[in-house]
Amino acid sequence: MEDLLRRVLEGIRPRKEDRERLRGVAEELMVRAEKVASGLDAPVRPMLVGSAARDTWLREERDIDIFLLFPEDTSRKELEEVGLAIARKVTEGKGREQFAEHPYLTAEVGGFDVDVVPCYDVEDPRRIRSAVDRSPYHQEYVVRELSPASIDQVLLLKKFLKGIGAYGSELKVHGFSGYLCELLIIRFGSFREVIREASRWTSEVVIDPSGEYDSEKDARRLFPDEPLIFVDPVDPGRNVAAAVSKRNLATFVRACQDFERQPSEKFFFPRTPSISPQEMRGIIEARGSKLLGVTFDVPKDLVPDTIYPQLRKTERTLVERIEGAGFKVLRSDVLSKAGRSLILLELSVYELPKVRRHVGPPLGVDSERFIEKHLSSGRSLAGPFIDRSGRLVFEVEREHTRAIGVLQDALEDRGGFGRHVAESVEEGYEIVEDEGLVDLAEDEELFQFLGDYLTRCLPWHL
Amino acid sequence: MEDLLRRVLEGIRPRKEDRERLRGVAEELMVRAEKVASGLDAPVRPMLVGSAARDTWLREERDIDIFLLFPEDTSRKELEEVGLAIARKVTEGKGREQFAEHPYLTAEVGGFDVDVVPCYDVEDPRRIRSAVDRSPYHQEYVVRELSPASIDQVLLLKKFLKGIGAYGSELKVHGFSGYLCELLIIRFGSFREVIREASRWTSEVVIDPSGEYDSEKDARRLFPDEPLIFVDPVDPGRNVAAAVSKRNLATFVRACQDFERQPSEKFFFPRTPSISPQEMRGIIEARGSKLLGVTFDVPKDLVPDTIYPQLRKTERTLVERIEGAGFKVLRSDVLSKAGRSLILLELSVYELPKVRRHVGPPLGVDSERFIEKHLSSGRSLAGPFIDRSGRLVFEVEREHTRAIGVLQDALEDRGGFGRHVAESVEEGYEIVEDEGLVDLAEDEELFQFLGDYLTRCLPWHL
Repeated sequence: MEDLLRRVLEGIRPRKEDRERLRGVAEELMVRAEKVASGLDAPVRPMLVGSAARDTWLREERDIDIFLLFPEDTSRKELEEVGLAIARKVTEGKGREQFAEHPYLTAEVGGFDVDVVPCYDVEDPRRIRSAVDRSPYHQEYVVRELSPASIDQVLLLKKFLKGIGAYGSELKVHGFSGYLCELLIIRFGSFREVIREASRWTSEVVIDPSGEYDSEKDARRLFPDEPLIFVDPVDPGRNVAAAVSKRNLATFVRACQDFERQPSEKFFFPRTPSISPQEMRGIIEARGSKLLGVTFDVPKDLVPDTIYPQLRKTERTLVERIEGAGFKVLRSDVLSKAGRSLILLELSVYELPKVRRHVGPPLGVDSERFIEKHLSSGRSLAGPFIDRSGRLVFEVEREHTRAIGVLQDALEDRGGFGRHVAESVEEGYEIVEDEGLVDLAEDEELFQFLGDYLTRCLPWHL
Repeated sequence: MEDLLRRVLEGIRPRKEDRERLRGVAEELMVRAEKVASGLDAPVRPMLVGSAARDTWLREERDIDIFLLFPEDTSRKELEEVGLAIARKVTEGKGREQFAEHPYLTAEVGGFDVDVVPCYDVEDPRRIRSAVDRSPYHQEYVVRELSPASIDQVLLLKKFLKGIGAYGSELKVHGFSGYLCELLIIRFGSFREVIREASRWTSEVVIDPSGEYDSEKDARRLFPDEPLIFVDPVDPGRNVAAAVSKRNLATFVRACQDFERQPSEKFFFPRTPSISPQEMRGIIEARGSKLLGVTFDVPKDLVPDTIYPQLRKTERTLVERIEGAGFKVLRSDVLSKAGRSLILLELSVYELPKVRRHVGPPLGVDSERFIEKHLSSGRSLAGPFIDRSGRLVFEVEREHTRAIGVLQDALEDRGGFGRHVAESVEEGYEIVEDEGLVDLAEDEELFQFLGDYLTRCLPWHL
């Protein structure tokens, strides 16, 4: 086991030259930020935060986060205007503006993905004005609590989570953030202890190292729908693991159990499955289900954190509509990539007979209007009669005998869609069926997505 | 309304010549019974009971019930042997033996269906030895409580229940018995009052005229699964309406509501629908569902009260098996007629894709064996993976992609079938599909059954 982890570390720990390169770029940016700030005569304090500042980055990562701390009495408008002006100068005009709660700048500098984020220098982290204001406190906390000897343990945990597909708090992933990895190592001491601990987790976990809550129940009351709760040591009103979905929690727990049982590099470096278009067609035929892909253009400037929640909401709506009409969805998924989105629906019941059962009011509720409506509709095939449970029943004509009809109706009225998705679909959409999806997937990312979907498997089982 | 009921009564009340004919046959049988009994020197008292004895029979009915009352100290063996010997002589050897709790004889005499039933002359009707021992007490109670002026009201109620298909406590029907009709008229005074009362009934009704129970709840505790409870005035431990199914209770209540709203002779004399084989094929095509009929021979001497509960049990088992495999049954029904039975199943989901979702154990339960079993089965199409709810999932090959495969398996192993049905099916069966059923239905009764099924409707709506 120790050998295995040593080998993994050799593959993921930044080498001397990696560290020097990052340090070079980060220091240059920090120096420039100080200079620009003092040149503007603005009371701004630049701060390097995140994994780059804590040496908890993986060799494959390229993120540098610089925060610009403004005094609490700065107006929001000034913070945004001055903050972005500084950021633009720091990145020498290469930055693109992004929006979280505040606007911020993102740029590529010397091969690194640099974020320059204006925030408030708040005195109490429990009184923040937006989520980013907490980052300087996280920075201080981790630097204070995480011993340099434990940094390797963080790297192992991050890479493990990446390998099993559960790393990243962005809304496309709903996984574990880097900060959460650091806190888990601080709490349990080492990678192996985290694994051992987590392999006993259930579907509801509460971790509160600072003991802010009297009981797990108290903490759960505050974060009722979040399967994993890790109380933020710098702000007990926040769950660091708020983003972690049921799926990613369960994936992590299963991975820990399997790793305990049979440690392997596969957890850190999973094989990427690769199948041919021919094989894809074979799998689609073998499954025998009906695949419907809805594709449409989306504005290119929508970031994944905006589009993914909307796509998932739309996906849920479509599944509900289709199943509400009596059909059955086996599985579904969504993909968004530069300017184009796909909602993939796989049906196990795609076609239904014309006749459909329609249940009337129970005894005690007047049924006259119900009966008259159906007798005069011209769509009644049998009834009214009473079924075995005593309910009044008509058998009527189904509106759509194929699920695609329901899907098309839903795409026309777009109720329950995410806002940008609704607007995009209104502009036009295409429905691609079954093996047509393979032809559509000439695009590399789409092809990979479809291949992953069709061979879906826990990565360490590949 | 009074006109309507008068017209109905004219059509259903026995005419003078009907009554004379029945009285003639009944008296002759009673005289013969007395003579045979005294000839045998047996302490037996013959008694005319049932609707013939109370003048509550409809013109279309042809039932004469003669009970042979034995002293309580008679052995069961003697009761059966002597009872049947007398019965045979009374019916002059024309009788066929039947079995309820005791054996009894049934015969056709002078155009009437005659039952001769040995029973115990018990002193307290709450201490009966079998259900038939209550009949003499029912006879006494009704004669005492039902005024001759109310007999017409009983006839109206019986004919109304016949017209809507809810009359008869036999297990083929699960409806209202003649005795229950008499009690309802005694309780509420007239046909119209029963209708008015019942149109307000819900799916749970308790009637306890003798006030034997402190509350409806007390009575319901004794008869927990019986939707209509009418406490027997001669034995409060018995529910006279025990046979009434949810369906027949709801049918009666709906009929009462509709009759109140719009009285019509249709409730008493429903139209019999009649469709051609051509029309049947058209309806089957219009419904678009899949019809599967299982037919098999059954021993000719099995009475409906034996075969129907077994057919229904088998029907339920088949529906559960088919739906358990992921298919969907829209409606089903059973028919038994001289020597042959049919279980009809109508499917709205008849075919499913090869791929099927198989959910594994939840977090906290060891999944190693589950995963290994499926990985090595050679039938796994995808997985293991974790779904959105955090459950472990495999997608595996379905055993049967058509419901008929599941049906055939069930007919081969016959678990959960009624005993005689299982034995009969073991001898051989046939599965007839869709329009093949129309060809099968050259038989009048089967044809009528299929027509009723396809045009199923509350009779007063026809």
